[in-house]
Amino acid sequence: MLSKNKIKLFSSLPDKKSRIENNIFLVEGEKMILELLSSGFTVQTLLFTKKMKGFALNNNIPSSIELIEISDDEASKISSQKTPQGMMAVASIPDGFYSDSFSFRENNLVLALQDIQDPGNLGTIIRTADWFGVKHILCSKSTVDVLNPKVLQSTMGAVFRVKVVYTDLLKTIRELKENSSSLPLFAAILDGNDLYRSTFPLHGILMMGNESKGLSEEFIRLATHKLTIPRFGNSIESSESLNVSIATAILLSEIRRKSM
Amino acid sequence: MLSKNKIKLFSSLPDKKSRIENNIFLVEGEKMILELLSSGFTVQTLLFTKKMKGFALNNNIPSSIELIEISDDEASKISSQKTPQGMMAVASIPDGFYSDSFSFRENNLVLALQDIQDPGNLGTIIRTADWFGVKHILCSKSTVDVLNPKVLQSTMGAVFRVKVVYTDLLKTIRELKENSSSLPLFAAILDGNDLYRSTFPLHGILMMGNESKGLSEEFIRLATHKLTIPRFGNSIESSESLNVSIATAILLSEIRRKSM
Repeated sequence: MLSKNKIKLFSSLPDKKSRIENNIFLVEGEKMILELLSSGFTVQTLLFTKKMKGFALNNNIPSSIELIEISDDEASKISSQKTPQGMMAVASIPDGFYSDSFSFRENNLVLALQDIQDPGNLGTIIRTADWFGVKHILCSKSTVDVLNPKVLQSTMGAVFRVKVVYTDLLKTIRELKENSSSLPLFAAILDGNDLYRSTFPLHGILMMGNESKGLSEEFIRLATHKLTIPRFGNSIESSESLNVSIATAILLSEIRRKSM
Repeated sequence: MLSKNKIKLFSSLPDKKSRIENNIFLVEGEKMILELLSSGFTVQTLLFTKKMKGFALNNNIPSSIELIEISDDEASKISSQKTPQGMMAVASIPDGFYSDSFSFRENNLVLALQDIQDPGNLGTIIRTADWFGVKHILCSKSTVDVLNPKVLQSTMGAVFRVKVVYTDLLKTIRELKENSSSLPLFAAILDGNDLYRSTFPLHGILMMGNESKGLSEEFIRLATHKLTIPRFGNSIESSESLNVSIATAILLSEIRRKSM
């Protein structure tokens, strides 16, 4: 049984302001909670409905975590999913989670995202980055928050393995470039060089732009390599662009393929 | 000004049953409506709010289309978007739209989707297929409906260029295989051959499975080529799988790359 105040608090967590003020975030569903439990994050509370009691009792939950059985009604109030999975965890946002410090390690491949707005896109990009061994993602400050419930859900747990850094993106990339003039900077644009046929270094920073506007001029100007995913069939009638999470995946796949 | 009945009818269109019963569907937003107008579909009604009056009057809308100005309030009642774009079109579902007839043309690349549930995934797959010149997508009958508003939105207009056929998928693929024993059938699975290093024909049918279950055994058994997108870094800790629209995109990209 949850107090009214707790219900109010937990159901406010889809809102970034509330997450920051209270320094907690909410994770939903069995798969995500198992990933959370095996990550370094501190879990405060585990909420479960009657149906999910078995899960809560059978998974060696550390005794430091408060276990609370809730009603289906309470679950729908707190959940931001259409069909709540009857299983939610409240975790602390670690100190320094939003630190914007970042140092580029040579031979790493890093993603830089300018103003990605759609939570599903960011989550899917994090999941894909994890698959392709990308450990760091730099995001402009206007990019959707990584602890947004829909972002978390789309990462399928990858959020606990990939470090997402919110930063003044242009400034950060300019500084990285100043410190290392040979740093490869890839810009994904619509009129660049053929991704498949170009040769380019297999590390550096891959810059992806906003869903509707793409990368802005300042970023494109910094790029050492401008890349385009070729359309097939040359039909002027085909799609004008690809979804940003799709384009990111194809670029990462091709960079990794070339390096194998 | 819309009658109560019309508002009720139009706002029921996110529901597949209502679309089928009334033989109409709803398209939202400037970009999608421009694509609809230049497609072969018959548009019955164009709804626009005051703000969008200019669009409705300036785009050479055929006189056969009924133009109705609606209030912002009516727009939010009908729209299935959080922030309605003030611009909606009601179009007829063409005769034969749901016909399951399909003939495979030699050297074509076709997608086959088993039980894709998420509207964003199907829409994004259609958009990506269009980019890569795939003209036909076969869907199992349990795949989400292509005229679902969220599917339409994610296609960004590609839905008017790619033919989506709902069919008894297993039966259809079995028959295609019987008719042409040399038909390449690709299955995207987690323990197949390395996509990058394998050689395979560059046409045929690419089979993709449901978001959580993947392709079922019957489909995998029919495959002539089992393909896997290699993970990078070999970390056992990385993501277990890729989102299905991401995996589809990487496979299509690689097949097209090999054929260039």
